[in-house]
Amino acid sequence: MAPVITLTTDFGTADGYVGAMKGVIARLAADAVVVDLAHDVPRHDVAHGAWVLATSTREFPRGTIHVAVVDPGVGGARADVVVEAGGHLYVGPDNGLFAYVAADATAVHAITSPAFRLPAPAPTFHGRDVFAPSAAALARGLPPAMAGPATCLAGALPWPPRAGGDVGAVVHLDVYGNLVTNLTGPARAVTVAGRAVPAIRTYEDLAPGGLGCYLGSAGTLEIAAREASAAAALGVGRGAEVRAS
Amino acid sequence: MAPVITLTTDFGTADGYVGAMKGVIARLAADAVVVDLAHDVPRHDVAHGAWVLATSTREFPRGTIHVAVVDPGVGGARADVVVEAGGHLYVGPDNGLFAYVAADATAVHAITSPAFRLPAPAPTFHGRDVFAPSAAALARGLPPAMAGPATCLAGALPWPPRAGGDVGAVVHLDVYGNLVTNLTGPARAVTVAGRAVPAIRTYEDLAPGGLGCYLGSAGTLEIAAREASAAAALGVGRGAEVRAS
Amino acid sequence: MAPVITLTTDFGTADGYVGAMKGVIARLAADAVVVDLAHDVPRHDVAHGAWVLATSTREFPRGTIHVAVVDPGVGGARADVVVEAGGHLYVGPDNGLFAYVAADATAVHAITSPAFRLPAPAPTFHGRDVFAPSAAALARGLPPAMAGPATCLAGALPWPPRAGGDVGAVVHLDVYGNLVTNLTGPARAVTVAGRAVPAIRTYEDLAPGGLGCYLGSAGTLEIAAREASAAAALGVGRGAEVRAS
Repeated sequence: MAPVITLTTDFGTADGYVGAMKGVIARLAADAVVVDLAHDVPRHDVAHGAWVLATSTREFPRGTIHVAVVDPGVGGARADVVVEAGGHLYVGPDNGLFAYVAADATAVHAITSPAFRLPAPAPTFHGRDVFAPSAAALARGLPPAMAGPATCLAGALPWPPRAGGDVGAVVHLDVYGNLVTNLTGPARAVTVAGRAVPAIRTYEDLAPGGLGCYLGSAGTLEIAAREASAAAALGVGRGAEVRAS
Repeated sequence: MAPVITLTTDFGTADGYVGAMKGVIARLAADAVVVDLAHDVPRHDVAHGAWVLATSTREFPRGTIHVAVVDPGVGGARADVVVEAGGHLYVGPDNGLFAYVAADATAVHAITSPAFRLPAPAPTFHGRDVFAPSAAALARGLPPAMAGPATCLAGALPWPPRAGGDVGAVVHLDVYGNLVTNLTGPARAVTVAGRAVPAIRTYEDLAPGGLGCYLGSAGTLEIAAREASAAAALGVGRGAEVRAS
Repeated sequence: MAPVITLTTDFGTADGYVGAMKGVIARLAADAVVVDLAHDVPRHDVAHGAWVLATSTREFPRGTIHVAVVDPGVGGARADVVVEAGGHLYVGPDNGLFAYVAADATAVHAITSPAFRLPAPAPTFHGRDVFAPSAAALARGLPPAMAGPATCLAGALPWPPRAGGDVGAVVHLDVYGNLVTNLTGPARAVTVAGRAVPAIRTYEDLAPGGLGCYLGSAGTLEIAAREASAAAALGVGRGAEVRAS
């Protein structure tokens, strides 16, 4: 089976940054299958990227290599890491990007080996010069432990991906304007920004312009408006408090 | 030959939705080649998605599996379907998305078989839980008839893809601001919004700021402005009447 | 080794244009691996596309086929070409798009052979009807010289990709608002729009809101603001003069 490498970045698709990473992978691990996961993570938005990883990467088969680059601190103090979690491998900066997917991490290695980097990495583009070569090294079968010394993840995010109980937060705002919370099921009414939002099962239960709360595809409560932005309707975004009522 | 699965959605590339679908396909049909067709279909714009499918999918080899998800009614009354048309297979919601490509449909099956879905599909994400598994099932060689009972397409669009005669409509507005009509050739002058638009052969025949009408790459008349938006220049969009003059 | 074809366009991912090109390639060269390089090059912005090619394509292994379509003059006087440069093959319009990558071109051929085009190419969509079939022909092993007669590149850009000395220009504005210049290293302070910008090593050296100049990942000086747009902060864009000080 050909190794699979997914790419998640905030690089957009107007520049050559994604292409440069793909070129390095094609050069160093020609038989790897490269999958675009998401390249329009909002610029520098680490928490957004973390949620994207949490809601998509585990659908892939075990052994998949997931490279993620939302990295405003590139070249600075945060470490470059390879993370093993849930049978998957994650490669990227230790800045919180892996805080959701690595709750069950079994190993974390800092990337220091020359076999996992290009010579003289540019301090502003570890995607091309460190993370792509690391993914290629893993795809060629090098073990994660060869990347460098064992370490712990330092990066954190302000909210847990799942909150027990009745008080949680909006942890993701998606492209439709849906507000994804960390409250777990079952579907129930919630209060956000002083407004009561009734429970529904799916979008078709919404009246035009109405708001509803349902158990979303990530397994947590979500708030949506019918073919409109719930975030705009409620005037809230990530971090807003949500109370089950 | 590896099976080919194309993906067309309005999910954008900021969230994990496309990635989740790709993960399911990689897990269930590892040897399928997945091709991104278009993920920035305007949100909820079924007619736009239908035109995208109509102008691109038939370029692929026969036997290609095309998954399309522009699905504001997900989880509601519209059916999930597998459509056979022109030697291609289409998978998605029966809401008009296949109205253009399925004019020559030879079979339509509702998706009800557990072999074509994940267990307990989320009512808000059939892309991941129904359509991706269905595409994987087809890629593994299961026949479309195994998806479920034969049915007919109910979804429709207000305009036909091709209009004989001299009166038609704008059926697509592309990213350049070109107005694609359903009037068939040859190239001729048209009137839109009370304005006469002369016939041209290609963009270079346009004066800066000028408008022209030509036989477009979809085989129907198109109206363009030189490196500018014809839609903005004319103040019209999809549905506008176009008269050949 | 499967042939690799990269795609760089200004087509965006809302329409069927990219999909149509991929379909033609899948039909004519089924074993080619197609790689999306960048599809959100700003519409009609040939110089932007040229920089994208210059900063990404050479990362791929030699022999890669790079198709690029930013082509406002499609169907007009500019030639369709296959360019051999640096062991790579480039396919697209001769309008300046290859001015950076083809500085070391070893051969240029106009595309005139029927084996490199579809019958009756649409004058407004050479991406589908000429460049995709040409890439497929090269992927199947046809030599570039079979495309058509040898020629020279006519397309040019106003700035060289690298300027010796102390006076250069902004040659690229990336999605983060970073201003990429053609001044070569080492990192040094520069003056842009009357404002002195100090030398830094990487983004973390920037104070919030501050500007800095560093040796960027393309090997030339770049100007960035900390998690903000340097272009907006300085009120300049491509073409602005940059003086090393």
